[in-house]
Amino acid sequence: MTTIDLNSDVGESFGRWTLGDDEALMPLITSANVACGFHAGDPSTLRRTCAQAALHGVSVGAQVGYRDLAGFGRRFIDIDPPELVDDVIYQIGALQALAAASGTAVRYVKPHGALYNAIVHHREQAAAVVEAVRAVDTTLPLLGLPGSVLLELAENAGLRTVREAFADRAYTPEGTLVSRRLTGAVLHDPAEVAARMVRMVTDGVITAVDGNDVTVTAESICVHGDSPGAVQMAAQVRAALQRAGVTIGAFA
Amino acid sequence: MTTIDLNSDVGESFGRWTLGDDEALMPLITSANVACGFHAGDPSTLRRTCAQAALHGVSVGAQVGYRDLAGFGRRFIDIDPPELVDDVIYQIGALQALAAASGTAVRYVKPHGALYNAIVHHREQAAAVVEAVRAVDTTLPLLGLPGSVLLELAENAGLRTVREAFADRAYTPEGTLVSRRLTGAVLHDPAEVAARMVRMVTDGVITAVDGNDVTVTAESICVHGDSPGAVQMAAQVRAALQRAGVTIGAFA
Amino acid sequence: MTTIDLNSDVGESFGRWTLGDDEALMPLITSANVACGFHAGDPSTLRRTCAQAALHGVSVGAQVGYRDLAGFGRRFIDIDPPELVDDVIYQIGALQALAAASGTAVRYVKPHGALYNAIVHHREQAAAVVEAVRAVDTTLPLLGLPGSVLLELAENAGLRTVREAFADRAYTPEGTLVSRRLTGAVLHDPAEVAARMVRMVTDGVITAVDGNDVTVTAESICVHGDSPGAVQMAAQVRAALQRAGVTIGAFA
Amino acid sequence: MTTIDLNSDVGESFGRWTLGDDEALMPLITSANVACGFHAGDPSTLRRTCAQAALHGVSVGAQVGYRDLAGFGRRFIDIDPPELVDDVIYQIGALQALAAASGTAVRYVKPHGALYNAIVHHREQAAAVVEAVRAVDTTLPLLGLPGSVLLELAENAGLRTVREAFADRAYTPEGTLVSRRLTGAVLHDPAEVAARMVRMVTDGVITAVDGNDVTVTAESICVHGDSPGAVQMAAQVRAALQRAGVTIGAFA
Repeated sequence: MTTIDLNSDVGESFGRWTLGDDEALMPLITSANVACGFHAGDPSTLRRTCAQAALHGVSVGAQVGYRDLAGFGRRFIDIDPPELVDDVIYQIGALQALAAASGTAVRYVKPHGALYNAIVHHREQAAAVVEAVRAVDTTLPLLGLPGSVLLELAENAGLRTVREAFADRAYTPEGTLVSRRLTGAVLHDPAEVAARMVRMVTDGVITAVDGNDVTVTAESICVHGDSPGAVQMAAQVRAALQRAGVTIGAFA
Repeated sequence: MTTIDLNSDVGESFGRWTLGDDEALMPLITSANVACGFHAGDPSTLRRTCAQAALHGVSVGAQVGYRDLAGFGRRFIDIDPPELVDDVIYQIGALQALAAASGTAVRYVKPHGALYNAIVHHREQAAAVVEAVRAVDTTLPLLGLPGSVLLELAENAGLRTVREAFADRAYTPEGTLVSRRLTGAVLHDPAEVAARMVRMVTDGVITAVDGNDVTVTAESICVHGDSPGAVQMAAQVRAALQRAGVTIGAFA
Repeated sequence: MTTIDLNSDVGESFGRWTLGDDEALMPLITSANVACGFHAGDPSTLRRTCAQAALHGVSVGAQVGYRDLAGFGRRFIDIDPPELVDDVIYQIGALQALAAASGTAVRYVKPHGALYNAIVHHREQAAAVVEAVRAVDTTLPLLGLPGSVLLELAENAGLRTVREAFADRAYTPEGTLVSRRLTGAVLHDPAEVAARMVRMVTDGVITAVDGNDVTVTAESICVHGDSPGAVQMAAQVRAALQRAGVTIGAFA
Repeated sequence: MTTIDLNSDVGESFGRWTLGDDEALMPLITSANVACGFHAGDPSTLRRTCAQAALHGVSVGAQVGYRDLAGFGRRFIDIDPPELVDDVIYQIGALQALAAASGTAVRYVKPHGALYNAIVHHREQAAAVVEAVRAVDTTLPLLGLPGSVLLELAENAGLRTVREAFADRAYTPEGTLVSRRLTGAVLHDPAEVAARMVRMVTDGVITAVDGNDVTVTAESICVHGDSPGAVQMAAQVRAALQRAGVTIGAFA
């Protein structure tokens, strides 16, 4: 029987500012990418989010990012790789302590936002993230984009890597994501999205933008929770997978 | 044979800004209160400082503080105690990860600046710090001021507490520190300071401002390193203690 | 004919995080207390908010606060008064430039959150705010709480002061606000709130918590916009005042 | 008689952290690039620095940068240009208010660090800086690198532009700076540096790294003050220019 993980970004509120409906999302997912305070997430938000994850049996991952609250970690920063190593270690350690205080633990790492995008190609920053994870715990898996330099370097370094697909994104015939700058890059129909993910999990293919099937192999599906519509879409993806006999389970 | 610990604040540089001569100080002390990023200390500074401590066999302590880089943690902040709990857990965890990456570990906690001063009396914030330390590791000692609410609550909660004396501060006849607002609160003569500390360690007394002896019991002496003169004074205190047959050794 | 000003806090979003429905609120108010980046408000939010204010003919005020994004300026900070002077000047100047770029100008100053509360009594911090406003522009009015040390010192210093009433707050028989810690401190019925404000404006009295009338003199009424219910309440207050023949107009 | 301006970065301390010897530098320069709080400089530092500049008759410039205290503005940030416009307006406005409170005014703008380097080529960010300056005051000159996209766009937009030479940098035969990554990019001999600057001002040429003369036209020379040696070098450059009959005077 096939198993798939559902991951989502959570814990991204900050102080007075709330973002996302983590409570509604938590029962739907199996892996929670919890912000670590550098792009979002104050310590109390992190702890509360870890406690929610523990309550629902959801795996906690460290969603590490650039130090940029004003930009929400969505702006590339040309940080020196050795400093990035330490920034990532700091973030993972902080979350580990709050996760432990909530009766759970950090089980994987997933880079966030502009860092995630940069280390698809940026070899030095990708190597820095790999080095940081290894410095903390060589058994922590890295969740990332299939074909990314990050996962290539992580594998070479002996880390477990976990590939993810994006539920609401269009794919090129080469199996990469259609750039957000192009029309049609983001899908909005929950039924279509759910059907695509069922097909990806059961048949290993997604219909690309040219109408042909493209092979996509993933152990996890990334869903969103930052709007009521997003939570609704996540619920439909989960339900459709379950109807298709797929087991929803954490990879870590 | 008597043993005493020498502790000092280190790791307080931030990015481009350097503070203190950690390299000169490290061979002189036995416990390093390493900043944790909230009042000072970027992740790379923390890691480098932990590595220096490891090299010199110095114990690493988490110097937790208010989230206030602009104020260097020296301004009282009326933070909600539950948030302070989480802020402190976050800081300890972050330093734990960087210490581990440097081949050492966090062995105690010492609050910094305005937080240190507040929790001499502020019961709710003191309880928050105690709760945070317990949430991370019930075997971590708390280093603080004799007679403070912090140490009282920490003991009640089953934590090990370690009392410290201040090398360069004048004492009242009651054994408390003379307020910095009063003339003569801070001592500047290294020879006098060294002699006072020898007497405190060997006889358990310090000459108070009224000329009488006052009993001061401490397992650690706090010295400074933020100026060439401060490092010089720390060296003289250490040398005088060793000449008096006192062993300089970490409490943790 | 009587005239009253309606003021509200706006421009308190930050980066990815949205707070309050400024667009819905702007047509209802006459004075916009725009955050200045220290407790909330990134520069683009400030500029956009100033532009909305200009569009609706709403006066822009500088809502200055403590430097504390994580605490949203709601935690007292024991900052040295000379530093507070400069922090306030910095904030006003930053908003002045963004207001000018939006075709309007800063017409008054209103302290925010914990700073607002502190300088009801804290003489040194109140004096610092007064000094800062005078350093920027001696013709800028200060909007604040009747009976506060802030307004007393501002008047002594020759600044124009503007008193405000709080639409949704209960009043003591002495004419001060009932502490938020007590039940009934905040009123939730829009019709009742609107009726109270009409009475305050037309008769100069509010029914205190003991049932007796208490004299309240104010040139401005503070309303909120951080929830759909709050905007709705602001709309009802405005409509009721207009029905009662009161002119809604900016004080500045 | 020839006149040249000497500019330097100042006001870059932050809270407890001191950087540069502004007091020693101020009598030597004619234009002070004062940090604006985003990469360095707290409000009290800015005000104190403006007051020193006023005392010595030195022109104050707004040294605007990326919002990155941890990186001191030395890391490229891929910020959206419209947000950069507002960040720059905010910074200039904040400094304007503090300069006015110190009895002086902002007379020009000079981008800092990674922003300075980026907008030598990055057209969108350069246009953002130009737009910001124009939004604040169309008479404010922009100080920058000869041949940069920034100065090209600023001129096209009708702003006054001021070209600067770097006292301690080697030049290519094309008149651009030798990359800091190459050996010999930075010059350390004060006498040599001073002689080069005299020649640049009086003859309009600098000896390039290939030994040939290259034409360099500049109205200002950038000197440093972040070390005792740097201040010493600035003093020698100034003295040599004066001995050569050159007048040292602000461009603004």
